[in-house]
Amino acid sequence: MAATDDVSAEQIGDALGELRHRAPLVQCLTNIVVAQWTANVLLAVGAAPAMVDNPHEAGPFADAAGGVLVNLGTPYDDTALAMRSAVSAAGRGGTPWVLDPVAAGALAWRTDLAHELLAVARPAVLRGNASEVMALAGGLGGRGVDSLDTPEAAASTAAALAGRHGTVVAVSGPVDHLTDGKRTVRIANGHPWLTQVTGVGCALGAMIAGFAAVVDDPLVAAAAATATLTVAADEASLHASGPGSFAVALLDQLAVLAPHDLAARVRLV
Amino acid sequence: MAATDDVSAEQIGDALGELRHRAPLVQCLTNIVVAQWTANVLLAVGAAPAMVDNPHEAGPFADAAGGVLVNLGTPYDDTALAMRSAVSAAGRGGTPWVLDPVAAGALAWRTDLAHELLAVARPAVLRGNASEVMALAGGLGGRGVDSLDTPEAAASTAAALAGRHGTVVAVSGPVDHLTDGKRTVRIANGHPWLTQVTGVGCALGAMIAGFAAVVDDPLVAAAAATATLTVAADEASLHASGPGSFAVALLDQLAVLAPHDLAARVRLV
Amino acid sequence: MAATDDVSAEQIGDALGELRHRAPLVQCLTNIVVAQWTANVLLAVGAAPAMVDNPHEAGPFADAAGGVLVNLGTPYDDTALAMRSAVSAAGRGGTPWVLDPVAAGALAWRTDLAHELLAVARPAVLRGNASEVMALAGGLGGRGVDSLDTPEAAASTAAALAGRHGTVVAVSGPVDHLTDGKRTVRIANGHPWLTQVTGVGCALGAMIAGFAAVVDDPLVAAAAATATLTVAADEASLHASGPGSFAVALLDQLAVLAPHDLAARVRLV
Repeated sequence: MAATDDVSAEQIGDALGELRHRAPLVQCLTNIVVAQWTANVLLAVGAAPAMVDNPHEAGPFADAAGGVLVNLGTPYDDTALAMRSAVSAAGRGGTPWVLDPVAAGALAWRTDLAHELLAVARPAVLRGNASEVMALAGGLGGRGVDSLDTPEAAASTAAALAGRHGTVVAVSGPVDHLTDGKRTVRIANGHPWLTQVTGVGCALGAMIAGFAAVVDDPLVAAAAATATLTVAADEASLHASGPGSFAVALLDQLAVLAPHDLAARVRLV
Repeated sequence: MAATDDVSAEQIGDALGELRHRAPLVQCLTNIVVAQWTANVLLAVGAAPAMVDNPHEAGPFADAAGGVLVNLGTPYDDTALAMRSAVSAAGRGGTPWVLDPVAAGALAWRTDLAHELLAVARPAVLRGNASEVMALAGGLGGRGVDSLDTPEAAASTAAALAGRHGTVVAVSGPVDHLTDGKRTVRIANGHPWLTQVTGVGCALGAMIAGFAAVVDDPLVAAAAATATLTVAADEASLHASGPGSFAVALLDQLAVLAPHDLAARVRLV
Repeated sequence: MAATDDVSAEQIGDALGELRHRAPLVQCLTNIVVAQWTANVLLAVGAAPAMVDNPHEAGPFADAAGGVLVNLGTPYDDTALAMRSAVSAAGRGGTPWVLDPVAAGALAWRTDLAHELLAVARPAVLRGNASEVMALAGGLGGRGVDSLDTPEAAASTAAALAGRHGTVVAVSGPVDHLTDGKRTVRIANGHPWLTQVTGVGCALGAMIAGFAAVVDDPLVAAAAATATLTVAADEASLHASGPGSFAVALLDQLAVLAPHDLAARVRLV
């Protein structure tokens, strides 16, 4: 199975063009640590963020949104209620939603919440690091937000998890693995500084929700988001001298990355 | 009616001098997305931010603060309680407060909350984009945090809203329109990157609360805050290569902008 | 008493080496303003942040964490519950925890909460500005997050407070004073821009929790964290033109600061 046959660089470039053209509204129910960063990443890349995460409004808004992100970084009782509403409304209305089960496996309450949300409606994409994906698949948990398991080791688990839930599973790592259970995409762009900026993975989840709003195939959406982020990171690293300036340059590069440059630079391996 | 007759560039420059001199304490009840950015903007310009937004402390603190911002970006039941307390205390104590009804019109619960707060005490300034202002005036809603209506179209609505509530209405856009129902100020500084950084409008609301703490005329306060932000943005755009570096440069420029340069560079149109 | 005899520059440099080597997991129960910045500071310096602050998970996670920060910047009923759990678990399990009583003295509810937490378990370090330290010692309160009292004036109060609670008290200011009631460290690095970036003190609290996870002596931990932050700030100020670019450069410098350079540059006075 050649990964490059499953999703092409051209499809990825086209997806970015479509995102810029349609500027989808992305509802984010995310954590207090990364909310600003996530909004800035979405704005830079060309989407329209809306952090509507209270129980009164999250459900109705999920009908209007192009895509919905549910990120479990800092869940509270109130935001958990809002998540249930949003996922339920997304399921009913056909809005694609993305689950980012931050620290699943390491913390019991949110792991239960992740399973509960998966039972409410099928997500378009489930994004996490290897530990989180292993945990949701029934494996052992990690030590929190870190990934102790490698994406390679998680690959077969990811495929099984994708099949079980009828979703795409996107595992972040030095090489990103994405699978819908049958097809696989592996992307080898990126820079170690991505791990020294908080919320890069969280922002990727939001980007996936944005691409899923404008592209029918969730595997293409997840691949395009991952490629856009990591190709921009390659370029940003050339303009930075540490994690602080890298995060700033990443926003700049996300805003200027052209679809044809994305297609030319993405490394499908 | 010549807008430049209503508020002068000199008044605007003097207001910035006064803000720097007095470093007013600005209480912000704002959203989880922009809290850090708002605090950094206030610190850069010379004010003292205090994000006191829990129901136990928000009311008492509003007595001590120089100005209060209430921003509806991510309201929760608890913060809504805190907002009611703070607005009530601000009304009783004469502390100027600013309402930023983020996404009013697009979301029912917060729109009701905005109307409720307006009934508790008259705000010094109501700041929003055209959609939000139209919504509070009884018009049709937008699609969230975006502005689908133009500030120009909202101008007469803004004047009517200002008259009804005895407040200043500040409508952000490529040209900012500010009115107290009788007088009007239009400011034409700024840069498109302002729309690619989350929370610029939210931070403007906080700046208005800061200026309202040190200037008696709320229209001058709103004009001075708008001018300070957008003139600094003009300069920041010269030192930036995208929305990431622009946000960083904006903080730098807010810190160094001199009152006489502000007066010289503001474009009252 | 010569301060330089109590904690040496070599101990401080060694502590940074140990932090980098062990990458401790630091649980932060902190405020919505500084959560992102705090996580980025911890990542830059080499620690692993985890913002677990809900009542369901905060206690269990405090058993697994290397250190715990409790920061009272924006407390809510739910996070206060989580703080009680985390402090109680930290006390039982011997996890070092740091209290940052933001705005204690100025606001009654959180001042009571600070006293309550101090009664649950002895913190390794209590960090604040002079006003907050004076307030917790029974003195008069400040006007919020500002420090109206000087660190010098607070020095004897800090020593008394440290003795009463069996903790280290770290008072931030142009010269930082740290004491365990018997020994004292004074550090004179830093730059005025540190006061124009929100959350620098809050991030210092988190860094102290990180150092306390890898160094047995809490006074050394507090000194090493303070020195690392302020020596990095010295260098960052050379690469910045205002508070925005300074914050970015500070993250870059925290990531590259070498233990032996830290030992060479720290100014113990």
